[in-house]
Amino acid sequence: MKIGIIMGSDSDLPVMKEAAQILDELKVDYEMTIVSAHRTPDRLYDYAKGARQRGIKVIIAGAGGAAHLPGMVASLTNVPVIGVPVKTTSLDGVDSLYSIVQMPSGVPVATVAINGAKNAGILAAQIIGTSNESIYNNLEKYKENLENMVLEKARKMEESKI
Amino acid sequence: MKIGIIMGSDSDLPVMKEAAQILDELKVDYEMTIVSAHRTPDRLYDYAKGARQRGIKVIIAGAGGAAHLPGMVASLTNVPVIGVPVKTTSLDGVDSLYSIVQMPSGVPVATVAINGAKNAGILAAQIIGTSNESIYNNLEKYKENLENMVLEKARKMEESKI
Amino acid sequence: MKIGIIMGSDSDLPVMKEAAQILDELKVDYEMTIVSAHRTPDRLYDYAKGARQRGIKVIIAGAGGAAHLPGMVASLTNVPVIGVPVKTTSLDGVDSLYSIVQMPSGVPVATVAINGAKNAGILAAQIIGTSNESIYNNLEKYKENLENMVLEKARKMEESKI
Amino acid sequence: MKIGIIMGSDSDLPVMKEAAQILDELKVDYEMTIVSAHRTPDRLYDYAKGARQRGIKVIIAGAGGAAHLPGMVASLTNVPVIGVPVKTTSLDGVDSLYSIVQMPSGVPVATVAINGAKNAGILAAQIIGTSNESIYNNLEKYKENLENMVLEKARKMEESKI
Amino acid sequence: MKIGIIMGSDSDLPVMKEAAQILDELKVDYEMTIVSAHRTPDRLYDYAKGARQRGIKVIIAGAGGAAHLPGMVASLTNVPVIGVPVKTTSLDGVDSLYSIVQMPSGVPVATVAINGAKNAGILAAQIIGTSNESIYNNLEKYKENLENMVLEKARKMEESKI
Amino acid sequence: MKIGIIMGSDSDLPVMKEAAQILDELKVDYEMTIVSAHRTPDRLYDYAKGARQRGIKVIIAGAGGAAHLPGMVASLTNVPVIGVPVKTTSLDGVDSLYSIVQMPSGVPVATVAINGAKNAGILAAQIIGTSNESIYNNLEKYKENLENMVLEKARKMEESKI
Amino acid sequence: MKIGIIMGSDSDLPVMKEAAQILDELKVDYEMTIVSAHRTPDRLYDYAKGARQRGIKVIIAGAGGAAHLPGMVASLTNVPVIGVPVKTTSLDGVDSLYSIVQMPSGVPVATVAINGAKNAGILAAQIIGTSNESIYNNLEKYKENLENMVLEKARKMEESKI
Amino acid sequence: MKIGIIMGSDSDLPVMKEAAQILDELKVDYEMTIVSAHRTPDRLYDYAKGARQRGIKVIIAGAGGAAHLPGMVASLTNVPVIGVPVKTTSLDGVDSLYSIVQMPSGVPVATVAINGAKNAGILAAQIIGTSNESIYNNLEKYKENLENMVLEKARKMEESKI
Repeated sequence: MKIGIIMGSDSDLPVMKEAAQILDELKVDYEMTIVSAHRTPDRLYDYAKGARQRGIKVIIAGAGGAAHLPGMVASLTNVPVIGVPVKTTSLDGVDSLYSIVQMPSGVPVATVAINGAKNAGILAAQIIGTSNESIYNNLEKYKENLENMVLEKARKMEESKI
Repeated sequence: MKIGIIMGSDSDLPVMKEAAQILDELKVDYEMTIVSAHRTPDRLYDYAKGARQRGIKVIIAGAGGAAHLPGMVASLTNVPVIGVPVKTTSLDGVDSLYSIVQMPSGVPVATVAINGAKNAGILAAQIIGTSNESIYNNLEKYKENLENMVLEKARKMEESKI
Repeated sequence: MKIGIIMGSDSDLPVMKEAAQILDELKVDYEMTIVSAHRTPDRLYDYAKGARQRGIKVIIAGAGGAAHLPGMVASLTNVPVIGVPVKTTSLDGVDSLYSIVQMPSGVPVATVAINGAKNAGILAAQIIGTSNESIYNNLEKYKENLENMVLEKARKMEESKI
Repeated sequence: MKIGIIMGSDSDLPVMKEAAQILDELKVDYEMTIVSAHRTPDRLYDYAKGARQRGIKVIIAGAGGAAHLPGMVASLTNVPVIGVPVKTTSLDGVDSLYSIVQMPSGVPVATVAINGAKNAGILAAQIIGTSNESIYNNLEKYKENLENMVLEKARKMEESKI
Repeated sequence: MKIGIIMGSDSDLPVMKEAAQILDELKVDYEMTIVSAHRTPDRLYDYAKGARQRGIKVIIAGAGGAAHLPGMVASLTNVPVIGVPVKTTSLDGVDSLYSIVQMPSGVPVATVAINGAKNAGILAAQIIGTSNESIYNNLEKYKENLENMVLEKARKMEESKI
Repeated sequence: MKIGIIMGSDSDLPVMKEAAQILDELKVDYEMTIVSAHRTPDRLYDYAKGARQRGIKVIIAGAGGAAHLPGMVASLTNVPVIGVPVKTTSLDGVDSLYSIVQMPSGVPVATVAINGAKNAGILAAQIIGTSNESIYNNLEKYKENLENMVLEKARKMEESKI
Repeated sequence: MKIGIIMGSDSDLPVMKEAAQILDELKVDYEMTIVSAHRTPDRLYDYAKGARQRGIKVIIAGAGGAAHLPGMVASLTNVPVIGVPVKTTSLDGVDSLYSIVQMPSGVPVATVAINGAKNAGILAAQIIGTSNESIYNNLEKYKENLENMVLEKARKMEESKI
Repeated sequence: MKIGIIMGSDSDLPVMKEAAQILDELKVDYEMTIVSAHRTPDRLYDYAKGARQRGIKVIIAGAGGAAHLPGMVASLTNVPVIGVPVKTTSLDGVDSLYSIVQMPSGVPVATVAINGAKNAGILAAQIIGTSNESIYNNLEKYKENLENMVLEKARKMEESKI
């Protein structure tokens, strides 16, 4: 039972590794590699078609520009695919976002924010959590910590004069 | 084990009922109602906080404009939330899309295409399918049918002169 | 009689403190803290529902990305809410602007420019000024100073050769 | 004690009269007329400079395209100005929105949604409500009704099969 | 020696048949069918990988929304691929345009205007024309006719009073 | 016979001085100062209404954000007004462009590119040149020089290997 | 002494004839014809290069989509060129606007609003008016009428209840 | 048999030289120079009209802003024209993209990504490859290398821990 994290290019790693880090924190197993829709189309087919059999429960796919990786993977499997639009230099990631989220009827991609790899990891964990109490509990603790951190910062801001 | 479908207003029903219809087709149980983030904030809290306990496995939330419903639900539960940006008259749904997909770190919403309620339904089923072989098989059959329908149409186009 | 300044994260402080500074200058009392719609939803409810009772006359709420804070506060109180869309790295604050300004019928947010916290402060003072002659007079003096500063700069530009 | 509703052209009336209607409902007094920034600039000056003296507490100004009316009025008075970006045929009101909301430091306009004249009326009432208990109570009742209407619709949707 | 015209769905036919019509006019042979990147990914592979061998010289591929068809075909062949962004209901074809034109380094798609299938046909003929004098001459005649038609219309407008 | 160059703030000077420089080069007389639509509305009225009488033949007005200066000047005079949208930090000058170019029927502003102050200067000279042979000839020489400079650069690129 | 009105296609006539009509009203002479940058490039050269000699004082050029006509004319003459971005079906005229207004340094086009042909006519008259008292006076009367029409409408709105 | 690479200004060279470099790598002959649509319109005519005769098989034209070069060249020849939208400082190249891709019926430009000069080179080679086996084989090898490079990087990422 694993999450598969893939990205179109190693230049996406600084963004995509946040998915891996949060999965580590939430104690969810994962593997991470490069699959390029446009440069390794055969690998894309093999990866997507074999995913379920290899125990992949959720796929997180990040890509930028004309970002076809998440959608093409989703066309080849019924494992849920989470798409991470990676920010681009020319169009600020709007091209990535539209290319990933505007999928046609029949083939969904669960899209998160531009560069939102961390949230992709949390979402993957929530999906696992629908049938795994322990992961769900880890998420509850994470949410609680998040809240406490903000409350602590709020207390500090109220005490100090800016 | 159910999907919860909610929407901000009954004017969203023509879009959102496509989620219900595909879930019927895929034999996934669901309930459907109205929860308005801005007009019934208390109901929003109760709905989101009680969802898991009432057996809701995935929440599909549709809203338009400054579409806060999916994100606010996601802030209150670790049940995965799928957001459907509903097309608006003034900004064509770009406002809905940005309001739903651009969530901050820590609180993901699985966003589908503008008016993509049908895909939200399929995605919800895929999430259930990660731990339910029967639903997964329904999805496989659905994908196969989709492919066959297109192949049939392709055959027709090739035979006829336009 | 106070203005409540809130923001979604302490990273919004460099923008939001301009609201505090201009309120200081205009001699309007205020308090400032962090309330995160997505990370501290319970705190959001308590803050908004108790605001009027605690003497808050106007709320200034700043947030970025899928910026739900101003709208959610506005859904919970009839104290006027001024929304400050904070500029984001990926979409330049267009996401923040749309998420804040495009509120549905029944729940307004008084939106100012992207990063326009200073103007939010002035607007809050103008609202107080509708029933407070002294604050109104401070605003009149501020406007006059603004004009004089520009006239002085104009004079300088006309005198010097560029 | 009155709200002043102005618009750049009589073609804006179908949008702007919703401000008048909600003010009627909330029992807030108002006057309504045409002031065009570009076609009657002298009238704009007179209107804005004399507003406070004539008992105008809040100005609601609607305009489309290069929508300068709200900002120019705000430059001439410290009465709070609420801007309504009117939807245009070529740019869907994005031009109106940007022209109204992106005001420079020192001169705020409280901007509502594109075609959001009804919310402009509610916001004006909220501003009056900061110093007028009776209007505030009308707003509380309005909010309650809004909630009840949605709850009623939710009940109906839950009972019926779509 | 043929042009291959493909589209993601039969709903694209009203747009894409203009490519066929202009190729008829320019006496360039073609075949036309449906290949869906997301619904028939296997067919996409077979089509693209076998294209050159079957005598296809240029591929015209039309698709809308998250339009992955042209780019995925281009990833699988060195036959030049012309992409036609089909106009969509929610984002006016900007999503289709970005998904098609913003291809990563190494895999170009020759993109034409939104709904520009006729120009796709002309471009395909121009590509054939680089090595085929007869097709090139047909294009020269077509250009001449175009010019004459405009000159005739210009003459008419000058003569008549509008 | 003069060009009037005005800008909303001295922060616009680095952009706007290019208008002055090209007018110097083309031997067209000008004056330059600050007129803020929002901070010095009275000065705006005086400037615009008195322009023709003071011998101003064309007004070049630069402003950013909700850029009302060019349009408001145009509403007060029949001297041609050239608008320069100044690039802004949050919306890249799209707000400035829309605020300047989308003027309503009856009140035109001759809009140039974002930060296009140099072109505003040339356009002002061309307007003068419609009735002044000497300025016209200066423009012809300028155009010729422009062409020669490009031809020279082309020659260099052709000679050298990149 | 004439205005030259040109357009890229006779389909632009419904928009462009408003330029002719207002010039008629302002008693400014004009001629009107079709010049297509892309379909009649030779005619474009002849038209632009001969314009001044034939007594054309200002050129109004309307075009849509990749609208090159105004800019290419401006590259060939120092007669001032006013560009009218014609609204398009796919991108609402944003493509036309950007193609016309974003001219490089050295070659300005005086751009008016999308479909703003009437304002193009007024601007052309204002340019003539810089050296022609009679046309200038016609513009002054036109402005006065505009103001009176609005004042009359304002009076009517104030008298009637909406 | 050559590719002609042209650009509107020598400031486009850092982008456009990538087209030259990949053509070197693919062993396709080319020439490169500057042709400015707006500053050297006569040169543009001569270049485009004489291209075919001089043995130019494909033209690659790069330009930014109101980027008229590719379209105007395409209006003057039936040699296929590939347009490269060069990124601009104010509108991020969206203006360049729209100006190049949105060509009217009858005159196509094969548009690649913003700053996509490398892909323009590959596309030019693919066009040559439709009638030249040796160039086609070079492209096949290039594609293979691309795939191998990605596979190698994938292997590395899988082996190492991030």
